[in-house]
Amino acid sequence: MQVEEAIYSRRSIRRYSPRDVPDELVLKLIDAARQAPSSKNSQPWEFIIVRDQEVKEKLAQLAPYGRFITQAPVVVAVVTDPEKSRFHMVDGALAVHNLTLAAWALGLGTCWIGTMDREKAKEILEIPEGKHLLTVLPIGYPAERPQLRPRRPLEQITYLEKYGRKLPEHHG
Amino acid sequence: MQVEEAIYSRRSIRRYSPRDVPDELVLKLIDAARQAPSSKNSQPWEFIIVRDQEVKEKLAQLAPYGRFITQAPVVVAVVTDPEKSRFHMVDGALAVHNLTLAAWALGLGTCWIGTMDREKAKEILEIPEGKHLLTVLPIGYPAERPQLRPRRPLEQITYLEKYGRKLPEHHG
Repeated sequence: MQVEEAIYSRRSIRRYSPRDVPDELVLKLIDAARQAPSSKNSQPWEFIIVRDQEVKEKLAQLAPYGRFITQAPVVVAVVTDPEKSRFHMVDGALAVHNLTLAAWALGLGTCWIGTMDREKAKEILEIPEGKHLLTVLPIGYPAERPQLRPRRPLEQITYLEKYGRKLPEHHG
Repeated sequence: MQVEEAIYSRRSIRRYSPRDVPDELVLKLIDAARQAPSSKNSQPWEFIIVRDQEVKEKLAQLAPYGRFITQAPVVVAVVTDPEKSRFHMVDGALAVHNLTLAAWALGLGTCWIGTMDREKAKEILEIPEGKHLLTVLPIGYPAERPQLRPRRPLEQITYLEKYGRKLPEHHG
């Protein structure tokens, strides 16, 4: 799949087919993730492949907008390290987005789960105190085809030279 | 360009050809950026297209690892809004990574500039106090072909089920 098509057709997926996603494929996605750039090449990211249904259910209970992760055949927890980089969350986000787009190009869907009781989730996954749990990413073959959620128009979010200076009407 | 090729061939670019990048193309990249997912679809991002050489020079002085941005025909400042989303930096990073990959697929290079005197840079760009200046992204046609900086091996950064539980040797 072409880059442009992946960027424009990608949707957050919250319903998954029961079809399995083998570890081989998950590792391919994590391999794509680790190609992301990071501050001073610190690579402040680690990944936990979670398949245990009980663990997925416990995590789902801690994520008010992520109850559906129990349906995904696999969940990847993304851990970042504040000691490796003060930009660890941003670097981790770039890695996750590589994973997301690589997954989409392979016909797989994901959804960023950001809101959760991180302390409890870290306990469940045995993540050391000093590390940050960035997201738990469900991965599976989509069982839905969501519409694009509306985006603010380009001319409302783009300025020329200084903040607040709008593009001329005819611009672009 | 295919997604996989873009992810694996992308490099951070710090030397640019003098060839111009027209606004039309920059807007295409920002359009790709705003396709990113964001927490509750908050889209906490705005973009300032900077071409004024004096402004670029002032910004470069504030970014110890970004002096080279003066050479790029255009710099895009990415502004995020903590009031729109408490995940504004992460959401902004996803948008920037869409931009980065879309640029790469079009033969353009960028480099994430993260370390800078943000308060002074915000003043120069007239960014309101409550907003966050995430990065100033130089964009241009590459005048270098950097090698991939080494990545930690997949098996060092991936665990199974719990943090610290290594993949079996034969895994994947």
